[in-house]
Amino acid sequence: MDPTKELELKLKELKIQLELERQKHESARPIREKIAQMSSEVVDSNPYSRLMALKRMGIVDNYEKIRDFTVAIVGVGGVGSVTAEMLTRCGIGKLILFDYDTVELANMNRLFFQPHHKGLSKVEAAAKTLSSINPDVTLETNNYNITTLDNFHDFMSRISHGSLTSGPVDLVLSCVDNFEARMAINSACNELNLSWFESGVSENAVSGHIQFIVPGETACFACAPPLIVASSIDERTLKKDGVCAASLPTTMGIVAGFLVQNALKYLLEFGQVSYYLGYSALTDFFPTMRLRPNASCDDSFCQQRQAEARARPPKEQESVGDSKMEDKEVTHEDNEWGICLVDETDPRKLHADEDLGRGLVAGVKAAYTIPAPVVPDAESNEVDASGVSLDDLMAQMKAI
Amino acid sequence: MDPTKELELKLKELKIQLELERQKHESARPIREKIAQMSSEVVDSNPYSRLMALKRMGIVDNYEKIRDFTVAIVGVGGVGSVTAEMLTRCGIGKLILFDYDTVELANMNRLFFQPHHKGLSKVEAAAKTLSSINPDVTLETNNYNITTLDNFHDFMSRISHGSLTSGPVDLVLSCVDNFEARMAINSACNELNLSWFESGVSENAVSGHIQFIVPGETACFACAPPLIVASSIDERTLKKDGVCAASLPTTMGIVAGFLVQNALKYLLEFGQVSYYLGYSALTDFFPTMRLRPNASCDDSFCQQRQAEARARPPKEQESVGDSKMEDKEVTHEDNEWGICLVDETDPRKLHADEDLGRGLVAGVKAAYTIPAPVVPDAESNEVDASGVSLDDLMAQMKAI
Repeated sequence: MDPTKELELKLKELKIQLELERQKHESARPIREKIAQMSSEVVDSNPYSRLMALKRMGIVDNYEKIRDFTVAIVGVGGVGSVTAEMLTRCGIGKLILFDYDTVELANMNRLFFQPHHKGLSKVEAAAKTLSSINPDVTLETNNYNITTLDNFHDFMSRISHGSLTSGPVDLVLSCVDNFEARMAINSACNELNLSWFESGVSENAVSGHIQFIVPGETACFACAPPLIVASSIDERTLKKDGVCAASLPTTMGIVAGFLVQNALKYLLEFGQVSYYLGYSALTDFFPTMRLRPNASCDDSFCQQRQAEARARPPKEQESVGDSKMEDKEVTHEDNEWGICLVDETDPRKLHADEDLGRGLVAGVKAAYTIPAPVVPDAESNEVDASGVSLDDLMAQMKAI
Repeated sequence: MDPTKELELKLKELKIQLELERQKHESARPIREKIAQMSSEVVDSNPYSRLMALKRMGIVDNYEKIRDFTVAIVGVGGVGSVTAEMLTRCGIGKLILFDYDTVELANMNRLFFQPHHKGLSKVEAAAKTLSSINPDVTLETNNYNITTLDNFHDFMSRISHGSLTSGPVDLVLSCVDNFEARMAINSACNELNLSWFESGVSENAVSGHIQFIVPGETACFACAPPLIVASSIDERTLKKDGVCAASLPTTMGIVAGFLVQNALKYLLEFGQVSYYLGYSALTDFFPTMRLRPNASCDDSFCQQRQAEARARPPKEQESVGDSKMEDKEVTHEDNEWGICLVDETDPRKLHADEDLGRGLVAGVKAAYTIPAPVVPDAESNEVDASGVSLDDLMAQMKAI
């Protein structure tokens, strides 16, 4: 055959192959265009019809307002990634993601990440998937550890100026797995006077909690911190030594569900926002409570917010956060922070231990020397779940 | 330029482009190989390390046994798809999926399906994604409506012979959205003596429930069916008329989490399986209860299973299902099935209505003429949540 003819044929064949490959690849790309305005129209092609139906059902007055909100999610792991996906599918205006980890196959026992994400940074992999799920959501990614000095400065800047209108975010959701990061978020939110939700899952995978923190109005994370945290060894080192915490897609999905559901109630003003909601999977037990701020909290900005709250007229004070929120308070019994880390599978094993820091299991230490009474200013009333505050502390400790 | 030379250059360029396209496409494929045996080894490449850690944590004795189990999931929508994903990530042996719907953009407000699945059958899209998440799970798909005569026969055959050892499945999970499908699953499970979980989410998107049904031991779906169901119009027709139920990824994710968590507790024998667990999102309320079977149930196989249960020695009877399950019973007060469909946002609005079928909202009708007392044989004891049975019925009704 004429060599030119042969080349032309090869060229034609290659062009077809190329087109086929492109089509294959194309089919893996998002196929929906941006939507300018949320519509209630009930057609198969409207991704918002079932959300806008919340208005007709009398649940939410103004669902489309969700597009105005910016939420920061710190930690895009087992809870944070599902949290981001739920908010994305709900059509949130903007998400700001913070994480510094990469996706590994060891993460595949939780929802969201897939094997083909392996090796990507968690924020990059998340943003890629989320924007394909809902291109209407503005996504900002920050691939760093918020606890270092420089990064903390940038973190403060992003949550105070990162909203769609360059103002503060509407809510911060903590989905981190360690004490330092929680304390960093707490400091930032106290200083910036931002409401936030803390979340956590126990290391035995069968319990978790969410906690709503309104600076000055409720206990902050420093008002009632865990008493026991992992020693200076970080999670990576622990992992290398062959020690790793258990986790389940169920517990993490449920905690993410509680977190986003309460975030939606807060942002869109429906129902009652829970100040604290626990989940114990073994018995399907769900403790709720409210912790008042600690008058002698170590965080000076918390003290400042408390003073501001006291200075507000009672009515206004009551309405901070959400006027519809239940005002539950917790009975503290007589276990004044004297607790020790025991097997959570048997709640009866819980007992007081005055000498905290002695006899702890390897790999944990007391988080700080215990100051004078740090018991939150709680008044006992309606809550009948005795020992609920212990569950809270246990959950916080286990989440470290 | 020499035309042959030119062609050769073009050819070379095309070959490079083709290679690039192939690489792009390749990167979208699952990258993990099958794993012959579950390992506890804590390395980034082990997708089972965090699950096998449940053994070291003292939660589950024999986690790797999960590979022996086959679970049937009927309905692969907002709850069923997340249920399938959770079980897949947990490393279940085999899943048998049943659904006859296709993926639409209107499904994008719930987890799991993505815009690029649009137009695929739900079972096909699910199997594709699930096998890429965990190639160790055996997936069987059945793209049909189980309620037609022929399909029901095949459904019975698959759940009685579809396990990894060609025997009955270990558990059936109902994630359907209509009365007929629930009744079909109920009939099949009563006849085959298979334990199953029913699940449902209300049409206002803010409540849901799961219910564990052990033929002969607990009330079956026909023992205590909803009193009000959608009129003969099916969901598609309703949709075309511009009416659609609200849904949220949060509520559906939480219900799927409860469903799979209790399925895991049942299969792997840890914790206490809940017979009924409700979820009311507006107030974070979680009612639990147990309904005893109805001695005059319309389903003859239910009656047969009840007789078998009565004939068993008490000890054996107690151990059916899970010996560790709580034996809670519900108080029924004096509202003998006389209830009507009211706004769930205010539980105080619930009131008795003896004349069921009159004054119902458009689009619903009484499910059947009310027979003589169908109140389950409940004995009142420890459960203090008065009105819990009403919540149950409301949730079932709303889920239609």
